[in-house]
Amino acid sequence: LSIITFLSDFGLNDWYTGCVKGVILSINQNIQIIDITHNISPFYIEQVAFIMFNYYDYYPEATVHLAVVDPGVGGERIPLIIRTEKYFFVGPNNGIFSYIIANENYSVYQVEIDKLKKYNPHFISNTFHARDIFGPAAALLTKGILPEELGHIYHQELMLNKTDISIKQDEILAKIVHIDRFGNIISNFSINNYRQMKNRKIKEISLKNILLDGLEKTYSNVRKGKFLALWGSHGFLEISINQGNAAKELKCLCNKDIIKIKLE
Amino acid sequence: LSIITFLSDFGLNDWYTGCVKGVILSINQNIQIIDITHNISPFYIEQVAFIMFNYYDYYPEATVHLAVVDPGVGGERIPLIIRTEKYFFVGPNNGIFSYIIANENYSVYQVEIDKLKKYNPHFISNTFHARDIFGPAAALLTKGILPEELGHIYHQELMLNKTDISIKQDEILAKIVHIDRFGNIISNFSINNYRQMKNRKIKEISLKNILLDGLEKTYSNVRKGKFLALWGSHGFLEISINQGNAAKELKCLCNKDIIKIKLE
Amino acid sequence: LSIITFLSDFGLNDWYTGCVKGVILSINQNIQIIDITHNISPFYIEQVAFIMFNYYDYYPEATVHLAVVDPGVGGERIPLIIRTEKYFFVGPNNGIFSYIIANENYSVYQVEIDKLKKYNPHFISNTFHARDIFGPAAALLTKGILPEELGHIYHQELMLNKTDISIKQDEILAKIVHIDRFGNIISNFSINNYRQMKNRKIKEISLKNILLDGLEKTYSNVRKGKFLALWGSHGFLEISINQGNAAKELKCLCNKDIIKIKLE
Repeated sequence: LSIITFLSDFGLNDWYTGCVKGVILSINQNIQIIDITHNISPFYIEQVAFIMFNYYDYYPEATVHLAVVDPGVGGERIPLIIRTEKYFFVGPNNGIFSYIIANENYSVYQVEIDKLKKYNPHFISNTFHARDIFGPAAALLTKGILPEELGHIYHQELMLNKTDISIKQDEILAKIVHIDRFGNIISNFSINNYRQMKNRKIKEISLKNILLDGLEKTYSNVRKGKFLALWGSHGFLEISINQGNAAKELKCLCNKDIIKIKLE
Repeated sequence: LSIITFLSDFGLNDWYTGCVKGVILSINQNIQIIDITHNISPFYIEQVAFIMFNYYDYYPEATVHLAVVDPGVGGERIPLIIRTEKYFFVGPNNGIFSYIIANENYSVYQVEIDKLKKYNPHFISNTFHARDIFGPAAALLTKGILPEELGHIYHQELMLNKTDISIKQDEILAKIVHIDRFGNIISNFSINNYRQMKNRKIKEISLKNILLDGLEKTYSNVRKGKFLALWGSHGFLEISINQGNAAKELKCLCNKDIIKIKLE
Repeated sequence: LSIITFLSDFGLNDWYTGCVKGVILSINQNIQIIDITHNISPFYIEQVAFIMFNYYDYYPEATVHLAVVDPGVGGERIPLIIRTEKYFFVGPNNGIFSYIIANENYSVYQVEIDKLKKYNPHFISNTFHARDIFGPAAALLTKGILPEELGHIYHQELMLNKTDISIKQDEILAKIVHIDRFGNIISNFSINNYRQMKNRKIKEISLKNILLDGLEKTYSNVRKGKFLALWGSHGFLEISINQGNAAKELKCLCNKDIIKIKLE
């Protein structure tokens, strides 16, 4: 079985994911479609990009990662296929692949409707490109159709939507890019960023009125109900409460509050 | 792999879908079960019927569409298998197949418990027919068991729950049958209805205090925040706000408010 | 295709289930992963244990049941593999398997990290054992790796989190262990418990201010809006309202209110 992962903002109440999956399986019935989430909030593209970064490379080689968060559907934004060493990515050029292209060698293709129609000659609507363009392109890739058969090399710059950490002498300013179900507050400061600052050590971490004097290894290293900072399973700096909800406690919001990390 | 699509009102917090899937896979392990939605609100059957209409024919031939929204479980309503040219449908006779049978040639079978038990000799509860009747029947169909082996031709009328549009001279009254995650307001007036009215043109469309003087091709044809009407990807007339939530803005409810379409 | 069922408290908005599935499919691409629910509330382990009891034995032989509700991740709790006659269970030793081990013959193994790493030599985080330990162990079991190759027999007592019914002469006190999407109030008093009390008959059932004088066969045996008691499809005593929401009506809470069953 081939694998397509599927992330979108379609929610779980309508028929939209059901349509896309039907189209995919009509092109290749031997695909396993793995839902990542369909509850994406479409208005904060950097968060979508961050989420994609956190699952893609756990999948087997040749997986096609389909991601459709597309507030500009029907407008001018370009449908893309990105090929990396191990994977394909299919979705709109609006910044959702920002973290991935910062991390991988890749080539990019613009999907051409005329070429796509040679393989899947259906009507293409103005408002549902997941069903009519992105889903079919993803399914065709699992059948060994090459991206150059579905489009052409895209030479322009890709849309980027990714804020890097800001470093001033002894202080790092990190952005909150995700708050998870458990209320863990996840920043864009990664352990890789940190490793590149050889010889520097973290002295304290602050967020709103919380001040933490170092990192823990796991939640249960502090008492129940206490705040801690740690490198999360995703490799990014995270502020949490052991068996509690840090984001709720601090009334913390994505893309707004800033985590300050002081270095020795 | 055979395909069963699965729609229900079981929600995502209990074990009910998990039971049904276990029973299906115990009968035939080579089935891919595709969840459409399990968040159906059971009290508005016409909406369920409308949702089913919007995904079924994107699936490959021989797909079995299982749909269990069944407030009358354990009562008198009949368990059905509907066979169309390309598909099977399995579920209760309470109107959920109304849009499909209006659109397809079909034959109908009433599932007989005694025949079903020949293939799947388990206890049948009074309260969970998705697990005990509908799921097993769907799974057996994927194994090539014929509907006549699981029941007999059903000669009575099927339950219908579908309001057609009302046409008076220059005005069409359409019903709101679905509001999607994005707040798009979807009516039961289809582009096919419209095409049958040769020589007539849409002059204006109104809903509550909103008056629109024609249809757009896609959301981004109007400015962000503006109302528009268009033929949605599903082929029905839809009222939306570009990058906004039309239903919330208008406090619009399914099955209550009426869209008026004036013809030239 | 092998089958892994997957229950967790990861929710449906983050990438966590997506990571676990990627890891599983990287070990064995021929697995069908069936989501039971990921909306478990982690703070009431007995309810998790009860939910697991209600789906596991509908699955085909050799299914691996993966369940990760793990508030103690990174702490001292032990990762387990439980083998019953037909199935494997993989998850933490915190009580989530309580109902299953009360019902099955089983042997238990403690997963050893060193042995696991022979087959899946990845970094193991302190905070995401579903991805790093439980998921890989489940996937390896589907490949025919034996539990003794992934760990050693665990000789200590398993954590138990299961309250049995209390029986005094003419009265049974049952606990509310689950409230489902429909508002059905589900107790821990099973039809098997009842059958063991030969010669006793249920006289009346009470919960808060509701008094019912016997059991019905199905919801529609009482008029719409009326309370009833019945043996639910799961085999436990359930209090419901025909086409209504009993839990909401009674403001009933899991693990708090008590159902009294009087015997003749």
